[in-house]
Amino acid sequence: MIIILKSHATDEQVQHVVDRIEELGLRTHVSRGSYRTVIGVIGDEAKALESPLRAISGVEEVIPVLPPYKLASREAQREPTVVDVAGVKIGGGHMAMIAGPCAVENPRRMDEIAAAVTTAGANILRGGAFKPRTSPYAYQGMGEEGLKILRDTGDKYGVPIVTEVMDPRRVELVAKYADMIQIGARNMQNFVLLTEVGQTRKPVLLKRGMSATIEDLLMSAEYVMSQGNPHVVLCERGVKGFDKATRNLFDVAAVPQVRLLSHLPIVVDPSHATGRPDLIPACALAGVAAGADGVHIEVHNCPEEALSDGPQALLPQQYAELSAQIFRLAEVIGKSISKLGRKT
Amino acid sequence: MIIILKSHATDEQVQHVVDRIEELGLRTHVSRGSYRTVIGVIGDEAKALESPLRAISGVEEVIPVLPPYKLASREAQREPTVVDVAGVKIGGGHMAMIAGPCAVENPRRMDEIAAAVTTAGANILRGGAFKPRTSPYAYQGMGEEGLKILRDTGDKYGVPIVTEVMDPRRVELVAKYADMIQIGARNMQNFVLLTEVGQTRKPVLLKRGMSATIEDLLMSAEYVMSQGNPHVVLCERGVKGFDKATRNLFDVAAVPQVRLLSHLPIVVDPSHATGRPDLIPACALAGVAAGADGVHIEVHNCPEEALSDGPQALLPQQYAELSAQIFRLAEVIGKSISKLGRKT
Amino acid sequence: MIIILKSHATDEQVQHVVDRIEELGLRTHVSRGSYRTVIGVIGDEAKALESPLRAISGVEEVIPVLPPYKLASREAQREPTVVDVAGVKIGGGHMAMIAGPCAVENPRRMDEIAAAVTTAGANILRGGAFKPRTSPYAYQGMGEEGLKILRDTGDKYGVPIVTEVMDPRRVELVAKYADMIQIGARNMQNFVLLTEVGQTRKPVLLKRGMSATIEDLLMSAEYVMSQGNPHVVLCERGVKGFDKATRNLFDVAAVPQVRLLSHLPIVVDPSHATGRPDLIPACALAGVAAGADGVHIEVHNCPEEALSDGPQALLPQQYAELSAQIFRLAEVIGKSISKLGRKT
Amino acid sequence: MIIILKSHATDEQVQHVVDRIEELGLRTHVSRGSYRTVIGVIGDEAKALESPLRAISGVEEVIPVLPPYKLASREAQREPTVVDVAGVKIGGGHMAMIAGPCAVENPRRMDEIAAAVTTAGANILRGGAFKPRTSPYAYQGMGEEGLKILRDTGDKYGVPIVTEVMDPRRVELVAKYADMIQIGARNMQNFVLLTEVGQTRKPVLLKRGMSATIEDLLMSAEYVMSQGNPHVVLCERGVKGFDKATRNLFDVAAVPQVRLLSHLPIVVDPSHATGRPDLIPACALAGVAAGADGVHIEVHNCPEEALSDGPQALLPQQYAELSAQIFRLAEVIGKSISKLGRKT
Repeated sequence: MIIILKSHATDEQVQHVVDRIEELGLRTHVSRGSYRTVIGVIGDEAKALESPLRAISGVEEVIPVLPPYKLASREAQREPTVVDVAGVKIGGGHMAMIAGPCAVENPRRMDEIAAAVTTAGANILRGGAFKPRTSPYAYQGMGEEGLKILRDTGDKYGVPIVTEVMDPRRVELVAKYADMIQIGARNMQNFVLLTEVGQTRKPVLLKRGMSATIEDLLMSAEYVMSQGNPHVVLCERGVKGFDKATRNLFDVAAVPQVRLLSHLPIVVDPSHATGRPDLIPACALAGVAAGADGVHIEVHNCPEEALSDGPQALLPQQYAELSAQIFRLAEVIGKSISKLGRKT
Repeated sequence: MIIILKSHATDEQVQHVVDRIEELGLRTHVSRGSYRTVIGVIGDEAKALESPLRAISGVEEVIPVLPPYKLASREAQREPTVVDVAGVKIGGGHMAMIAGPCAVENPRRMDEIAAAVTTAGANILRGGAFKPRTSPYAYQGMGEEGLKILRDTGDKYGVPIVTEVMDPRRVELVAKYADMIQIGARNMQNFVLLTEVGQTRKPVLLKRGMSATIEDLLMSAEYVMSQGNPHVVLCERGVKGFDKATRNLFDVAAVPQVRLLSHLPIVVDPSHATGRPDLIPACALAGVAAGADGVHIEVHNCPEEALSDGPQALLPQQYAELSAQIFRLAEVIGKSISKLGRKT
Repeated sequence: MIIILKSHATDEQVQHVVDRIEELGLRTHVSRGSYRTVIGVIGDEAKALESPLRAISGVEEVIPVLPPYKLASREAQREPTVVDVAGVKIGGGHMAMIAGPCAVENPRRMDEIAAAVTTAGANILRGGAFKPRTSPYAYQGMGEEGLKILRDTGDKYGVPIVTEVMDPRRVELVAKYADMIQIGARNMQNFVLLTEVGQTRKPVLLKRGMSATIEDLLMSAEYVMSQGNPHVVLCERGVKGFDKATRNLFDVAAVPQVRLLSHLPIVVDPSHATGRPDLIPACALAGVAAGADGVHIEVHNCPEEALSDGPQALLPQQYAELSAQIFRLAEVIGKSISKLGRKT
Repeated sequence: MIIILKSHATDEQVQHVVDRIEELGLRTHVSRGSYRTVIGVIGDEAKALESPLRAISGVEEVIPVLPPYKLASREAQREPTVVDVAGVKIGGGHMAMIAGPCAVENPRRMDEIAAAVTTAGANILRGGAFKPRTSPYAYQGMGEEGLKILRDTGDKYGVPIVTEVMDPRRVELVAKYADMIQIGARNMQNFVLLTEVGQTRKPVLLKRGMSATIEDLLMSAEYVMSQGNPHVVLCERGVKGFDKATRNLFDVAAVPQVRLLSHLPIVVDPSHATGRPDLIPACALAGVAAGADGVHIEVHNCPEEALSDGPQALLPQQYAELSAQIFRLAEVIGKSISKLGRKT
């Protein structure tokens, strides 16, 4: 950690900072420049981070030199984490093809969509039973009934299933049915929920919040991991932007950034990132070319009847075309995509 | 609702849209222009909103003409809502002066700060017992012990108290102690929590999320209100910006926007909005001049020892100076600030 | 300047950095921590800034400790600059009331608006003769004819005039007519234009770019000042935001930030910041309460016939009401507003 | 165009809007809903756009249904434009490989870099002679001497050259030397410069501004095209984001968006978009996979001695590796990259 003092800091102020740091059991290294005094902190930075040194009079800035996440960092583990979702591997050269409707609507619809997407190459089936809706008057999902339908459909087609949990009181219930638990973007900093999910041993699909930095995202992964659950897959799904032409701004650079900073896998979700079917294929391919460990796509066979987010879903035929392109691209760049789902 | 079709929409596509709308029990009004066909929907827009009309082939855009929130809208209630927090009124010309430390740390510290801020004019005391921290390794708050300390301190100084709840399982507990329940910015779209808080009848301080539009904020208020709790006070606390010189970007225009769209009171929180004590006074005064129904400020008597967010706290003396300026400004613009807190 | 090395930087890399810095005639101070080596640079930071030290292998980050602007900084001048625009003072307790139509349209319209705004208290008259329009097909302004009309109108009402220049080849022409030259937001980093304007001695109204940080804004002021023209007035007029409900996001915290970092005056322009007449008064008052040295407002007596930006203009009557509130607020906070314009 | 009236608009207000539109020689179609009245405008929307209809009392919103750009739109030309830069084709399946140093520094350096990048597959050579620098004290470029060096180097290696122009007075000079003229991000809305460049017939590389929407970008292309110069290549180079970990936020979705809306080619510039060599390769490949018509990369053989933007340059060896990957990817997706530059 480096502490930069204000230009007119007095000797007393410098000494006070030094004293505080030494009280924490750390050593200091004071460097007086022409204009500024800089104090280097030697020892376990974590101890110093908990102390509000920037609040001390005369301090201009406090600059940590270590990332605030530990378990999630590349420093903690050089080789990439491979998350195993009931037989489907994600990370370390293995790509996930996650697809399905926004919401589980009824058994027939779920079956039709599952048949289509698994034929096209999807190896994990998604579908929401609890939906985070901006409006209290909008469709909120089928609840446990939806979980059962999703489970049965996944079993029938031999693929693992992923679904979102919003309520810490329902983590156990969702974990009973799902092979992978999704934390949605709006809950990325719902620390209560992260903690609860960290206490299961289910793989977690952690979506990036709309205004979260990469560091924020890794800190949320750290919450899950610090509870003992290391099976975290990150998901880039767009951040807030100023151009209203797209729902969000797809930050494809998140993929190489995460790979530099962390050993955790990262997949991309161009459906939420753009909100526009006509942009999804290009963004999905961009994500794969950038090194993503998977692609998450919403697919619906009758978007105009979808109970949630219909306008951003691909049709099964569009998904099949995109999927073929992803498989071809994956081959060129040496990624493998498991075609075998979970056996019932 | 207005539906704009793509420039090459066919007659079949137009008819299909018309059919879908009429199935919903609504009427249409088709207008064919030189380049585009536009369909006006006549009847209860809410019905049409639930249907993903934008997903229909040939549809370019769907434009609602009514706000998606109802209970929170000016249309629902012309006169301003006045929220009564154990005797302190907020809204309709009454301003809240909310102040206190980021976190409740111990009884002595809480007492010192409460003594200072109430003397300076604060009429609601704040303090966090459950802290939403980005890092799982950071101080997480005192829990129920903190609630008790805050309650006792509020009673001693005769002021109501406000504190944050993060966990839906603890809403009842927090409601037992607090006069007003805070929903933090990171939980503004934690719909489970909003629903739970909506089922109490406690006043709610709802902070705007970092990437929430004004409409998003009002939709979250709608969640609380739709559960039967109309006592919602909104809080502007800064949104994500691109200039790293401040923690967030203080959106002072949120104040007049909310006043135009809603009858709910809105207060400003320049502490979180800027993260910098040297900018807080100017932003607090700006908020009041813009018409805010209160000011929320973090105050600590020894920021360098604060367990959370010390660097952004004002010192008691700074708060007293600012408070005097706020009172003077409030007088000029005809606002009243209750100096009487809750009687024990 | 502080140079932080990557965690696995070798001794050779450290030495190479040290050598490069010493070649520049500067001294170094090397501090080896448990995880990181940090090099402090002692001497004239400007020399080091020109060298791309961050490009050296092993360097993680380079952190300047001085602001990159010199003439514009508080360090260069403690007392506030007071810019004199043909007799109207801006800064140091003196406020500018700049008002007028977006574009000069014809003599009669200009006269009517000038009569109204000067009666209401405006002390500088604005109007565009060269308009920066997003569309090549939109009205581009009257050119020199517009400058003449503005000049004549200003003379008639005894107020100085400000107008925008976009083309470096026309700076001389504009300076011949205007008392103050405006650089628009889209040209804030048009360095050719800044340099040209810096070579006149006319006061400059420098508007903040839509994605400019405060540092960027001050660097653009530095361009003008480094050419010998110290008469720069900054203008906050909104930055890009994610909420499409307003044209831009009014960053009122820019006001106290500029006052901390610089001695230059700063005014606010709520017309462009919000793009909405119903939000302008609240934002104008917010700016003044935050300490702005003036308010810039677009006024038109028939917005629906305005040739540019009509929808964001206040009506003369609305301006008069707002102006009265601004005068009252200015008095409370001890600011003076010259009512005497330029005598003809 | 569609005009939505406020909910309480009177009959007189509706009639007034209708009258205004009919005065413009257009027809209207009035639709009265339960809550709102909507007026459709039939006829040439451009006429209505010039009139500030939104400023009329009772009008809530004015929604154009046509894009404001004409020449640049897909409607104007279905087949993709292929821009020919002295023999190198861009667009319609042809990709540009633009590479070179940020600034032309001296003949030897330019020669070394040109040798390296052309060997690696670059088919257009870049280098700045006039540099837009944030600081007036930073290196501003070699001027005409730099243009000569770039021209000679391009001729020697048989590749066309592209370089930036900042000053409308120097467009003729730059056009004398360069095969393609660059408009930098900070000048994307320098309408004077766009107009001047539009009067040449040289291909233009138009970089997206940091806070420009796709529509803004296409409107700036329209400025150039409306002057008679149709040879415009767009460039995505990152927009302002909130995460300071990267210089800008690379908006890869801009590529498919431009392809939907316009016939103009679009290339990507991951160097400026990320500012970080460790992220450039992944983002370059993402851009190509998304359908970009070329890749613009800064390359320097000794970044630590570069006079401008050294820290974001790739080394020649890194460029060669990336280039090989781009060629492989281009082949998979059926794009051709001309290896033959301009013959001397």
